[in-house]
Formats: sequence, C-alpha cells, structure tokens
Amino acid sequence: MTTDFDHLRRTDLPALRGAIRTGRYAGHTAGLGRGYLQANLVILPADMALDFMRFCQRNPKPCPLVGVSDTGDAMMRTLGRDIDIRSEVPAYNIYRHGRLERSVTDITDLWSDDMVAFALGCSFTFEHALMQAGIPLWHVENDTTVPMFRTDRACVPAGPFSARMVVSMRALPPDRVDEAVALSRRYPLAHGAPVHVGDPAEIGIIDITRPDWGDPAPVKGDHVPVYWACGVTPQVAIEAAAPPLCITHRPGHMLITDIPEEAEVPVLAPQAA
Amino acid sequence: MTTDFDHLRRTDLPALRGAIRTGRYAGHTAGLGRGYLQANLVILPADMALDFMRFCQRNPKPCPLVGVSDTGDAMMRTLGRDIDIRSEVPAYNIYRHGRLERSVTDITDLWSDDMVAFALGCSFTFEHALMQAGIPLWHVENDTTVPMFRTDRACVPAGPFSARMVVSMRALPPDRVDEAVALSRRYPLAHGAPVHVGDPAEIGIIDITRPDWGDPAPVKGDHVPVYWACGVTPQVAIEAAAPPLCITHRPGHMLITDIPEEAEVPVLAPQAA
Repeated sequence: MTTDFDHLRRTDLPALRGAIRTGRYAGHTAGLGRGYLQANLVILPADMALDFMRFCQRNPKPCPLVGVSDTGDAMMRTLGRDIDIRSEVPAYNIYRHGRLERSVTDITDLWSDDMVAFALGCSFTFEHALMQAGIPLWHVENDTTVPMFRTDRACVPAGPFSARMVVSMRALPPDRVDEAVALSRRYPLAHGAPVHVGDPAEIGIIDITRPDWGDPAPVKGDHVPVYWACGVTPQVAIEAAAPPLCITHRPGHMLITDIPEEAEVPVLAPQAA
Repeated sequence: MTTDFDHLRRTDLPALRGAIRTGRYAGHTAGLGRGYLQANLVILPADMALDFMRFCQRNPKPCPLVGVSDTGDAMMRTLGRDIDIRSEVPAYNIYRHGRLERSVTDITDLWSDDMVAFALGCSFTFEHALMQAGIPLWHVENDTTVPMFRTDRACVPAGPFSARMVVSMRALPPDRVDEAVALSRRYPLAHGAPVHVGDPAEIGIIDITRPDWGDPAPVKGDHVPVYWACGVTPQVAIEAAAPPLCITHRPGHMLITDIPEEAEVPVLAPQAA
C-alpha cells in the first residue's frame, strides 16, 4: 500500500494528515512526516489513567510520555493544532481485557466520555538522528521491522501495570557505538540512551536470532548489538492490567504530531486567545 | 541556623538525612547534598492527582515531574531507598483552600490514605552546572534568594490547575549567555533551557528591580537578564485550584533524593527481590 503513497514522504504534513484522517492512507508511518515527532498511542478508561501515568513516569525510557488528553476530550491539544485522536492515526488495535480483538482505521464509534488518550515517544526520532550521522541501521536498509526482545529487567510497577522491559536491538560497527549512545541520549522523549550494549544473555535474551516481535536481523562480523528500551513495553503492561477496553495504534502506524523532533519539550505554545 | 550545620555540606547523605528526619536540621538545602537531585514537593488529594500530573506533563519547564507516590503510600520509592515523604523534607508549608496556614517540620499527623506526593525538579541542579563552568551567579555569591517574577505567559491548563508562568532571573555576562543556555538545556528535569533572554517587558515583567518573590538582584553594566521557568509556577496553579488541603516544601527547603544530578532518568533501579 505504501508504494502508492511514496509522494507522501515528500509532501507536507497537512496533506498527509488529510489522507490519514479520511482513511485514504492506512499504512505505516516510517519515513513519513520527516522532522516531526511521531508517537505511540494508548487509550484507557479514566479510572486507570492515574496509574498508567505513574507507570510512564517511573519507566521513562520504555514509556516516554509526550502527551495526555483531558478525560473524554479526543483532541490532543498540546501535540498539534487539530489532532483528533479518533481519526489521526492510520490504524488502531482494539484490545478487550488485554486481548487483541481487531484492527480498525477510525475509532470515532468507540470513543467515550470516560476515556483518556496517551501519546508516547517512539524510536523513529533517534533513528533519524543516527542515520543523519551516517550510522548504518540494517533493518532500515533492508526494509524490515527492527527485532524486539523480552528481557529479564523488571519495570517499576504502578497499580495494575507491570512488565519486564522490552528492547529493540540494532547491531552497530564497534567504532560507532559510543557516538550512537551519546546521540540517542539527546532524545529522552524517544527512549534516550541504550539500556544495554553487548552480551544478550546479560539482560535475559536467550537467542538473539529469534526476536519476540519484529524481524530477525544479523549481528554481522565484529558488529556489537545495542539495545534500546522499546515502546512495546507498555503494551505488555496493558496485557497484564487487562483493562475492559484499550485502544492502541497498530504497531508502526504512529500518530504524527506537529512537534518538531528537535523541540526541547513536546508542547505547542498556547495560541493567543 | 545553617551555620551550625556547615559540616553537612561535606558530610554524607545518610547523616544529612538523619538530621532532617529527626528534626535536628530544619534549614534550607542550598549547597547541601551536593551531587544529588533536589526536588520541590507537592502533596494533593488523590482526586486532583490526575489533573495535576496532566498540568506537569503539559508544562514540563516550570513543572518537571521527577517522582510520584502511590495513593496513600508515603514512600517515594523511585527517588531513594528509604525516603518517607512525611519527614524527609526539612520544612513544609500547609495550605488549606489555597491559603498558607502554617509551616511545620513533619507531616506524619497530616498524611492520609487518599494523598499523593509529587516531586518536581528544581533549579539547584542547573545552577551547579553553571557554577562548575565558571559562570557567575550574583545571588549565590551574595547569599540571597534568586529574584522571581510573574510573567504574562500562560501555562497550558489542566482541570482546575492554571497559572501564568513564574520565572527566575539571573543576569549573566553577555559572552556567557549562549553557554548558559546550552548547559541548562542538558537538564530537562531542572527547568531546562531559559524561556527568555533580554527585555523583561517582552514577557510582561514591568519592573526588573522589584521581584514578586525572592530578593532583588542587580543587572550590572552590560549583563543580560536570563529567565528560567520557575518551580513557584505550580504553587500559583495550586492557589488557583484551591484544594481543601495541600502540603508543599517550604521554599528553599527541598527534598534531597538519592538520584545523582547527572542521571539520565530520575528512577532508582529496582532492588533485586
């Protein structure tokens, strides 16, 4: 599907938004809306919202919170001028009691007055920075999904939310690792610096050739595996909490915000009254 | 009072903690516990906690959230191994319906099962970084409180919480301003980069010689006034919200955490079970 929309990579953000909002584009957002912060989406009942915010605050590397709606308000007012979270994401996953029920392209019929929407930063931002520095990313060059693994590292729990941290792995040339660590640390809203470098067994990964999510990627020659906290972690925490209804983005199908990737804080200045 | 405790500047953190916890030290914490993140404290009823967290998320420069307790749990578990928020702050202010009632050194008798404690980063962290770089800070050299001003810049509201941003002002030599901006931007949990440089009228400050809080400080010769978002802002928002009961630190009398100032995230790794 993305082939038909290759021009969107170079088009302006309002045109891309229009295509997503009207359902004409339901593909993934990798490489789209370049220069703007993209975000994972989690929508929960209001009575779980405080504990979920605590979970994000206590686990900022896997769950960097970049926006939260008012209860029942579908507009993400700090992330853009006109972001209606019910239609602004190309595809959504609907979970009931922690289990995936189906995927849809619009959730207007599911939104209700007791819902709260959360936007969490994603890895695209630091990947752009690494690529701009000329650091090779195998999964991007080969158009696959980055490999993701369960680890044995416990997140700090909050109410019903708990998880072992999920990480994404990128194998880098040894002479670029320090630079990749320093560069990604500059993006605390996009998982920040890696949580581990080197031996996968040290964080409980048994077989680096068999990811739990995404596609396998080789660790070639003298390349070093580098592990970043991953936005799948909150999905694992939500499975554990098993809320009656939870709506997320479909993996890879992100919310594209109006916030520049280089912004110091993920908040639009309030409009003059 | 601090004179008797000058040795605490050089003592270890547990000894300082013990003196605070037992009420033997009730003074300010400037210059104490060097190297560790200090934090402002806000304690609110649980039914206002979600909106206050939203207010902090939407206004991260004045309100950098570094910790939040479970409802009714007085231990700040992510900020230290043994931080009981009822006694770990040298002095507290008690507000009823938005008005200061009194100051105390321990709030054990006021804590209840429906309270939530929030810790917010403070300016000491970036001031340490500026001083280590040799950037002169007049209020530190003259042992006064930094001047703080109401501005005309609206914060993003959340529920009952709203405020015009409060800023603190430090006048710097013109050739050090860029460096001060870059250095403080490295500390997003301590107000980050300045919100304004130069003309006070541009942010609604009428008379730079008459601060709304703190002590006046001169803008000497060719020095340039530089304005950072200030932790008094959430206090203004709390006055607006007028909760039946709110407990804060007494200004300058901060919570000293176990988190190193240079830590990437303000979360202790969970202890092994």
